[in-house]
Amino acid sequence: MSKIIFKGDIVFTPTKDKFQVHKNSYLVVEEGKVTGIYGELKKEYKDYPLRDFTHKMIIPGFVDLHLHAPQYPNRGLGLDKELIPWLETYTFPEESKYKDKDYAKKVYSRLIKELWKVGTTRAVVFSSIHKESTKLLMDMFIESGLGAYIGKVNMDRNTTLNLMENTEKSIVETEEIILEYRDKSPLVKPIITPRFVPTCTVKLMEGLGELATTYGIPVQSHLSENTSEVKWVGELHPEFSNYASVYNEYKLFGQTNTIMAHCIYNTDEEIKLMANNGVFAAHCPYSNFNLSSGIMAVRKFLDKGVPVGLGSDISGGNSLSISNIMAATVQASKIKWLETDKALQPLSSSEAFFLGTKGGGSFFGKVGSFEEGYDFDALIVDDGNLGDIDELSLEERIQKFIYIGDDRNIIERYVHGKKVEEPK
Amino acid sequence: MSKIIFKGDIVFTPTKDKFQVHKNSYLVVEEGKVTGIYGELKKEYKDYPLRDFTHKMIIPGFVDLHLHAPQYPNRGLGLDKELIPWLETYTFPEESKYKDKDYAKKVYSRLIKELWKVGTTRAVVFSSIHKESTKLLMDMFIESGLGAYIGKVNMDRNTTLNLMENTEKSIVETEEIILEYRDKSPLVKPIITPRFVPTCTVKLMEGLGELATTYGIPVQSHLSENTSEVKWVGELHPEFSNYASVYNEYKLFGQTNTIMAHCIYNTDEEIKLMANNGVFAAHCPYSNFNLSSGIMAVRKFLDKGVPVGLGSDISGGNSLSISNIMAATVQASKIKWLETDKALQPLSSSEAFFLGTKGGGSFFGKVGSFEEGYDFDALIVDDGNLGDIDELSLEERIQKFIYIGDDRNIIERYVHGKKVEEPK
Repeated sequence: MSKIIFKGDIVFTPTKDKFQVHKNSYLVVEEGKVTGIYGELKKEYKDYPLRDFTHKMIIPGFVDLHLHAPQYPNRGLGLDKELIPWLETYTFPEESKYKDKDYAKKVYSRLIKELWKVGTTRAVVFSSIHKESTKLLMDMFIESGLGAYIGKVNMDRNTTLNLMENTEKSIVETEEIILEYRDKSPLVKPIITPRFVPTCTVKLMEGLGELATTYGIPVQSHLSENTSEVKWVGELHPEFSNYASVYNEYKLFGQTNTIMAHCIYNTDEEIKLMANNGVFAAHCPYSNFNLSSGIMAVRKFLDKGVPVGLGSDISGGNSLSISNIMAATVQASKIKWLETDKALQPLSSSEAFFLGTKGGGSFFGKVGSFEEGYDFDALIVDDGNLGDIDELSLEERIQKFIYIGDDRNIIERYVHGKKVEEPK
Repeated sequence: MSKIIFKGDIVFTPTKDKFQVHKNSYLVVEEGKVTGIYGELKKEYKDYPLRDFTHKMIIPGFVDLHLHAPQYPNRGLGLDKELIPWLETYTFPEESKYKDKDYAKKVYSRLIKELWKVGTTRAVVFSSIHKESTKLLMDMFIESGLGAYIGKVNMDRNTTLNLMENTEKSIVETEEIILEYRDKSPLVKPIITPRFVPTCTVKLMEGLGELATTYGIPVQSHLSENTSEVKWVGELHPEFSNYASVYNEYKLFGQTNTIMAHCIYNTDEEIKLMANNGVFAAHCPYSNFNLSSGIMAVRKFLDKGVPVGLGSDISGGNSLSISNIMAATVQASKIKWLETDKALQPLSSSEAFFLGTKGGGSFFGKVGSFEEGYDFDALIVDDGNLGDIDELSLEERIQKFIYIGDDRNIIERYVHGKKVEEPK
């Protein structure tokens, strides 16, 4: 594994404004990292093993910044319902099942297989409140070869009895997972996961913020997904000027690396706080369509310097495919521009691609691009059935793959230079 | 073929408000038409051949009311461009190629195979201006076993030189096709296809309206897809009070069966005219997203009694899959409701399913449902990989198929009672 050369049509986005393309070129990987891309192979590399994908595209692996593992069986269910009945009829009953490790194992093995299939090489994942199932999920990810941050969900108020935690126990179990997993694997790590402000008491948030900063563990949660939620947080915490400030007060907002999903109704002040604290926004367009949440003004966040990535948010979202979600991201931005605010220039294909690779990948470090020093996380894409590859430019081919390709076009996946085989 | 029984889990939408489901039931087909659905097989049917699809779903075939056959190679291309540069860079150059019948044959065979694959059993199709390629496309559809209306495009103003027709010739060639094909096949028929008002002179529209009413041939065109187009029509025809009235004046608006694609910026008066004249609207949500056209207020049209179906509108639309488009229809309606007009109640899954089956199917007669007397156009769906079919209701299974299924779930296709094999 130490040194390999990949040959093919290389496409990635060091910046969001355009695709960088290298037709029929050589990409050199050493110790799992990209060390260079060359039009002709230098002499010194002649003896390295060569993986020849001539006429195939080599692109960064996809990064999913927000998904709920236990909701996998509910994809495509209940999407005629409003958020609250949907949670009560489908989401909470399903999540309650994960106290059973055998059930968890069955579902999680399907989920990981599906992530592999659609080309997601790194994911940031909500598990359920259950410690054992969460640890199982982490072990299964380690086994798979895919990269992930995985968080045991914390909630100790405003939820169904089945899913209500004792505050102390919630904190203690979270710490146990941190201690057991923080150094267990280079690719799979714990992340602190308060579900969202309405389901977490101040005491719980304080405890989790303390764990985050003490151990240097990242954080994920939800922010401003819909208007009733924002109103609710205002009622629960009138002492704060806005929703984001609640997380910020309890050291859950960029004091360590942080992702907030949705960010549809953020105020300008909240956006500024995200930019200052380097808090990532996970944009989940399918989920936001399906649950009638709204459309995040992604352009505004990008302009203000907030790091942004894409999320599938199953099962609010129906698709795990980040390439589908890239297309939906462009579409959502066009509708936002057209129906709501002409100041928000629609996103381009390269911008959506950037968000689904390097944008989200940056949460993992040097991930999601093929610049020197980046982890070689990659997909090999055979797009021969999508158009005449001799006639099309690489920019056109990648756009076709985003809009009309699917998992059948992905023939191999790599994480940190290592080929990931189909999970059992 | 005269009498067959199909056994399985039957789902369809006689009305849009809900799915009608028949778990583990028998559907009887005689002379290509549905004659009944039974929980237990009557004695009189015991000797009929039985196709046993136990545990599989049997659903109506999908109907695509609007697509441009020659744009098939352009799916997923140029969607960062605005409408006019997109037309000039991609659409018109591609459409010019169809004077070459060999090229047309290559593309059209792929298109028909793809339609078959995604479960579209009936389609209403724009060809190009070229008579020979249009006839070829009709012959290829006849050969395939799928149902279609296919129209040679007419345009004699405001287009590129390559695609500009002589008015007389355009009318004469259209008539030739009508005479040759109106009785050639029960499933594949000609349709009169003025591209849209801006590219058709009054003389051309008059001639085409005359052909439509003389021979009783249906009509398809575009209406109010975007604001500049609507403005342009107003400038070209200040003598009319609105866009629809131009078509209506020249007998191209319901004097024979008519489909108008898009209908995003229709006035209430135009909607009323469509309802009165029974003019179908083809809703094409992906195309309307991709080209930043807007979102059709489908709810309003349904409430006013306008017949509505779904269209892929490739290559403005990127997907030919009507099940994908059903999901996009629900999503688009939710965004419209949320971002634009709270009076427009979002569409449900059953409503979207209705639009993509019986809604569009009604343009073909008794098509798109399994009520008595309807053509048996059907898909056999194996949804075993989408969820636990023993635990899920049929309403939940069909919703899952719409949101997360794909062509791999469709294992057989039927048109008018006859199995359609994969086109060569």
